[in-house]
Amino acid sequence: MKRRTINRIAFVSSDTPEALAACQALEKMYGSVSQDDADVIVALGGDGVMLSCLHRFMNTGMPIYGMNRGSVGFLMNEYRTDNLIERLEKAEITPLHPLNIETVDKDGNEFIARAINEASFLRKSHQAAKLRISVDGRVRLEELACDGIIISTPQGSTAYNLSAHGPILPIDSPLMALTPISPFRPRRWRGALLSTQNTVKIEVLEADKRPVNAAADHREFRNVISTTIYQDATAQSCIMFDHEHSWDERILSEMFKY
Amino acid sequence: MKRRTINRIAFVSSDTPEALAACQALEKMYGSVSQDDADVIVALGGDGVMLSCLHRFMNTGMPIYGMNRGSVGFLMNEYRTDNLIERLEKAEITPLHPLNIETVDKDGNEFIARAINEASFLRKSHQAAKLRISVDGRVRLEELACDGIIISTPQGSTAYNLSAHGPILPIDSPLMALTPISPFRPRRWRGALLSTQNTVKIEVLEADKRPVNAAADHREFRNVISTTIYQDATAQSCIMFDHEHSWDERILSEMFKY
Amino acid sequence: MKRRTINRIAFVSSDTPEALAACQALEKMYGSVSQDDADVIVALGGDGVMLSCLHRFMNTGMPIYGMNRGSVGFLMNEYRTDNLIERLEKAEITPLHPLNIETVDKDGNEFIARAINEASFLRKSHQAAKLRISVDGRVRLEELACDGIIISTPQGSTAYNLSAHGPILPIDSPLMALTPISPFRPRRWRGALLSTQNTVKIEVLEADKRPVNAAADHREFRNVISTTIYQDATAQSCIMFDHEHSWDERILSEMFKY
Amino acid sequence: MKRRTINRIAFVSSDTPEALAACQALEKMYGSVSQDDADVIVALGGDGVMLSCLHRFMNTGMPIYGMNRGSVGFLMNEYRTDNLIERLEKAEITPLHPLNIETVDKDGNEFIARAINEASFLRKSHQAAKLRISVDGRVRLEELACDGIIISTPQGSTAYNLSAHGPILPIDSPLMALTPISPFRPRRWRGALLSTQNTVKIEVLEADKRPVNAAADHREFRNVISTTIYQDATAQSCIMFDHEHSWDERILSEMFKY
Repeated sequence: MKRRTINRIAFVSSDTPEALAACQALEKMYGSVSQDDADVIVALGGDGVMLSCLHRFMNTGMPIYGMNRGSVGFLMNEYRTDNLIERLEKAEITPLHPLNIETVDKDGNEFIARAINEASFLRKSHQAAKLRISVDGRVRLEELACDGIIISTPQGSTAYNLSAHGPILPIDSPLMALTPISPFRPRRWRGALLSTQNTVKIEVLEADKRPVNAAADHREFRNVISTTIYQDATAQSCIMFDHEHSWDERILSEMFKY
Repeated sequence: MKRRTINRIAFVSSDTPEALAACQALEKMYGSVSQDDADVIVALGGDGVMLSCLHRFMNTGMPIYGMNRGSVGFLMNEYRTDNLIERLEKAEITPLHPLNIETVDKDGNEFIARAINEASFLRKSHQAAKLRISVDGRVRLEELACDGIIISTPQGSTAYNLSAHGPILPIDSPLMALTPISPFRPRRWRGALLSTQNTVKIEVLEADKRPVNAAADHREFRNVISTTIYQDATAQSCIMFDHEHSWDERILSEMFKY
Repeated sequence: MKRRTINRIAFVSSDTPEALAACQALEKMYGSVSQDDADVIVALGGDGVMLSCLHRFMNTGMPIYGMNRGSVGFLMNEYRTDNLIERLEKAEITPLHPLNIETVDKDGNEFIARAINEASFLRKSHQAAKLRISVDGRVRLEELACDGIIISTPQGSTAYNLSAHGPILPIDSPLMALTPISPFRPRRWRGALLSTQNTVKIEVLEADKRPVNAAADHREFRNVISTTIYQDATAQSCIMFDHEHSWDERILSEMFKY
Repeated sequence: MKRRTINRIAFVSSDTPEALAACQALEKMYGSVSQDDADVIVALGGDGVMLSCLHRFMNTGMPIYGMNRGSVGFLMNEYRTDNLIERLEKAEITPLHPLNIETVDKDGNEFIARAINEASFLRKSHQAAKLRISVDGRVRLEELACDGIIISTPQGSTAYNLSAHGPILPIDSPLMALTPISPFRPRRWRGALLSTQNTVKIEVLEADKRPVNAAADHREFRNVISTTIYQDATAQSCIMFDHEHSWDERILSEMFKY
């Protein structure tokens, strides 16, 4: 990978005192330009601020480099103030393809959203959700009674998907993980690994009695009726990692954690 | 077990056409008395109507015999119209001890409820729940980030608990299953089997940002702050099963299902 | 619990340099008597030496107190040389009931053994084991194709059983965990929790083509044909734990590990 | 996919009466040529005979079409005697890349083998195996105490890998599943999904005390010391499936089984 030249940085931070302080310190040290004029966005905080930048700068070619000033921070590099230009110039850019999520709610409203990590569905009342799951137009599960379900990208596979007992996926694997949350019936169903060529459709059955909310990453859609999810290979965001802690390396070492 | 004499039956049914028709047919065949005068309650429908009867007749000594006219029906006997008196006289009575659930919501309201199957907690917004878990007054998990958690009785262990990957418990085992739903952090935590001597406390952290609903079986409590759960050995409901399909037998054959 | 008076200690150690050195040091500090004259056995090493003492002194009433000079050491107390008499006098004794294991091999030889932790079965060739599983004389799984199976006591539930994805059991729960190792068919079978009243029978099918070894803790039986396992409530070993780290406490904190 | 012309069939069968009878019947109906002269091999029996053919005809370009006359038969088509030529001409060929397995035993003997489904390792005594796991020359797990471990191809992912709780992989995903069998330490390790670009090395620690056998599919290697495993993209076998039951379709429907 050829080395980039970085001159102009735009800093973005979450609104925690720790992230804001880091932002001020770094702007003082390295200067700061508007986002339009920047060569790179440096995001300070946790995975939330990174996800938000990846959405905002999708399809602009602008790379986002995060430094961890928050919790978890799987998407973030280690926080250090020195040698930032050099780290940025050496960092590896990983392109991420989002999921396209087309959803209709019970009032007939249509929404299109994108997800870097996952599309998720969760019941919103005490009534179990009943979902019909289709792949490429063919019904695969007529009725999944459950708390919900997750459709995760490789980059999201270490997040919500992992919590719901889904597998960690290598970042470059052409796969989506379909992972149920508390499946009641069929109760032993463990989910599926689908190809990024597949299109998944989730229909909410008995939606009045059993309301379900959907989410595209952290953006929520209430009382959804039907949602179509597929990888959008034409869209991409660009995330940067220090060379010695590339995403491949992160995922691999995550897989060997216990 | 000595044989009971059954003369007077009160029929109860869920409001589905199938259950109502069965109720009419059986009342015609066997007569029907008021619940106060009955020797036994016969419940028609699915597990929902049975749970509701077990709650209503708790601590009355009144046994409940269910016949399946609905979905699942793990708590129900097989539906047949003939020889009902003989089946009832031969049926085995299993006493069930409920969980006592004392909960406080964010407005300071206090509720006391009982659960035959389980106490459950589920986030109600897109924000992960953060729960502090104590056993007998000692904090065991300072902060569980998750979708929710279930505290299940043995009789509930084949229901919601099983869906969330908890173990099936023999009906007479002095245990409660504590089973997380999508644990984010600690993400590999598999839950715990506690003694019925233990008292569990679930506190909701950052409850304004991360609202959580609790449920005692199907009864829901919104925006809970703190909940205490323990087995109430002084309370009991009485469920009846055909001798040849006792609960022991059901649980055992459930364990060997796959 | 009334306080015991401890005057005479017999030390036992595994044969690692670390355990032997500890044994020498402690014998010098506290004196040493023969095992016949001792009030208590102090075992030095890892879980292996403890298991071996629990077997050797079964049904003698002799309590065993372990101190960890080896790996894992779930059955052991923390190693410290000072105040040993006081620690011993304050320690809690937990009685452990073993499993009785009656096995027949392909040459018709019969063996009776006891297990503190578990009975286990593992294929010994590249051919999958085929096992028939009965509970109280009734066949529950006609044919389990697998690498093997484990029948674990509560005290063994944090050991081999846990590795094979079985649940951790409270020490006083009247249960045995039946946990499959790599079940091929039925491939989704997760095992069962049985009552200590139950008797389990494991028969090896096609034993010539598919040879299987059994083990009672670490004692191995080759080419077994049929094995019967049940809790022997008349037999017991006595293990001692420091009051502030009782087994209940250990199991509970193990359950909340992740 | 263009339609092939099939004129000459060589039949192969396992040695069960059922498979042999099918072989005779089909040879009578369709004639039979030597394997050298055949357009296609038709294998009769279960997955064992198919695996054996896939090995034997590796890198010959010869396609293998199986019909199920045995148990399981995930690699087999449905058994029917009629219209065989037409089925063969319409069937889809899926190329399968094997794993290359280079192993050294304790006597210094070197073996090279290939596996269609998986490389597997299992302890051969009552002593837990201790394995060191490296990926691309870097140690990822210094010491895995376990019963064993499996490295599976996508085509093998529904077999042994699934039994050991590994995920099902789409047939065209460039992945290998690394799945532990009864991991003792680290006991919560769930395995890893690796890229087919990766090379895995398994070293057996304390091999005298803790002997381990390896297997490449069903071929066994005793007392191995060190084994290197990688996908051999230059080698391939060709399996045929009826168009309406392609491997993609089989894997997908397997994933939605429960």
